[in-house]
Amino acid sequence: MLKNLERYQLILGSQSPRRQELLKGLNIPFEVKVIDVEETYPQGLVGVDISMYLAEKKADVYQPFMNENTLLITADTIVWHEGQIFGKPTDKTDAIRMLNALSGKTHQVITGVCISTLSKRKIFSVISEVRFAKLNTYEIEYYVDNYKPYDKAGAYGVQEWIGFVAVENIEGSYFNIMGLPIQRLYNELKHWKE
Amino acid sequence: MLKNLERYQLILGSQSPRRQELLKGLNIPFEVKVIDVEETYPQGLVGVDISMYLAEKKADVYQPFMNENTLLITADTIVWHEGQIFGKPTDKTDAIRMLNALSGKTHQVITGVCISTLSKRKIFSVISEVRFAKLNTYEIEYYVDNYKPYDKAGAYGVQEWIGFVAVENIEGSYFNIMGLPIQRLYNELKHWKE
Repeated sequence: MLKNLERYQLILGSQSPRRQELLKGLNIPFEVKVIDVEETYPQGLVGVDISMYLAEKKADVYQPFMNENTLLITADTIVWHEGQIFGKPTDKTDAIRMLNALSGKTHQVITGVCISTLSKRKIFSVISEVRFAKLNTYEIEYYVDNYKPYDKAGAYGVQEWIGFVAVENIEGSYFNIMGLPIQRLYNELKHWKE
Repeated sequence: MLKNLERYQLILGSQSPRRQELLKGLNIPFEVKVIDVEETYPQGLVGVDISMYLAEKKADVYQPFMNENTLLITADTIVWHEGQIFGKPTDKTDAIRMLNALSGKTHQVITGVCISTLSKRKIFSVISEVRFAKLNTYEIEYYVDNYKPYDKAGAYGVQEWIGFVAVENIEGSYFNIMGLPIQRLYNELKHWKE
């Protein structure tokens, strides 16, 4: 499909099944390689800078395993709400706290992406605005108990029940909220050259 | 889940697999019943009025098969662009014409929904704005040849390859673009009473 990528072996450095599914949708062959990275960042970073810092930090750990034909994609998605980052909830109480905070308000989902080869890196981020309906206690507990969103930033998956009943409005990219801004990524890959 | 619906048997009057998948996501039991309706409407109708007219017209044909416990959901999705309706493309040339017209511009996807029982009807419509990137001839032909979007209004499915590479921005509901404004529908069902 994209002739300029023919010399590369594409690697997706992410264990997220949502990211794998989205990248698959582009019909470009790729492999998944997972290396764990501690998702810590310097104090003082905010919003988009956190997501881009973490996307690049993830790329760093793949460096020793890359050769001159490797094209690596790494990404990090955060929920940003009223000046605070909402990461993966630590337990049920934490998940309920996050969903209560998001209920009836608009938050940002930000994905930072790093496309890298041994000689070039392109880092960018995409912001989507998500407006949640007001949720009641029963709805929040029903979701947390049945869907256990402990691997999800902000304690929710937009493609799950909560996304169906809570998401009143999106401004931006839906796929970005799932974890990968696929249209922007396609565009970057289409124009990739070294 | 929704106690106020316990007395009803929910029927989805649509053969669209996307609508069936979306309604399933609400975790409310329902059955699918398909009755064909000619999708014609009075001249002079525009935009939202067409989608609501057709949603209600679809409901009409189910009337003889309903009883006092039936709660019927019918819907119609149209693509509305520069004062014109984009329905299902008649052939390859027509599909290419539509995608060329949508390329690089913003259009509206409108779904009209009719919730009905024998004694009450609620009809509403939801608009999503979709901005397409500029597509080239190769991309448009690749999509039409490989995905054959002849059953889709506007000649595209947002959840397919073209949605991944073309949709730059959404304002509104993503699921509405797929064919059912599921958050609004949930909200209407949650507050349903006769």
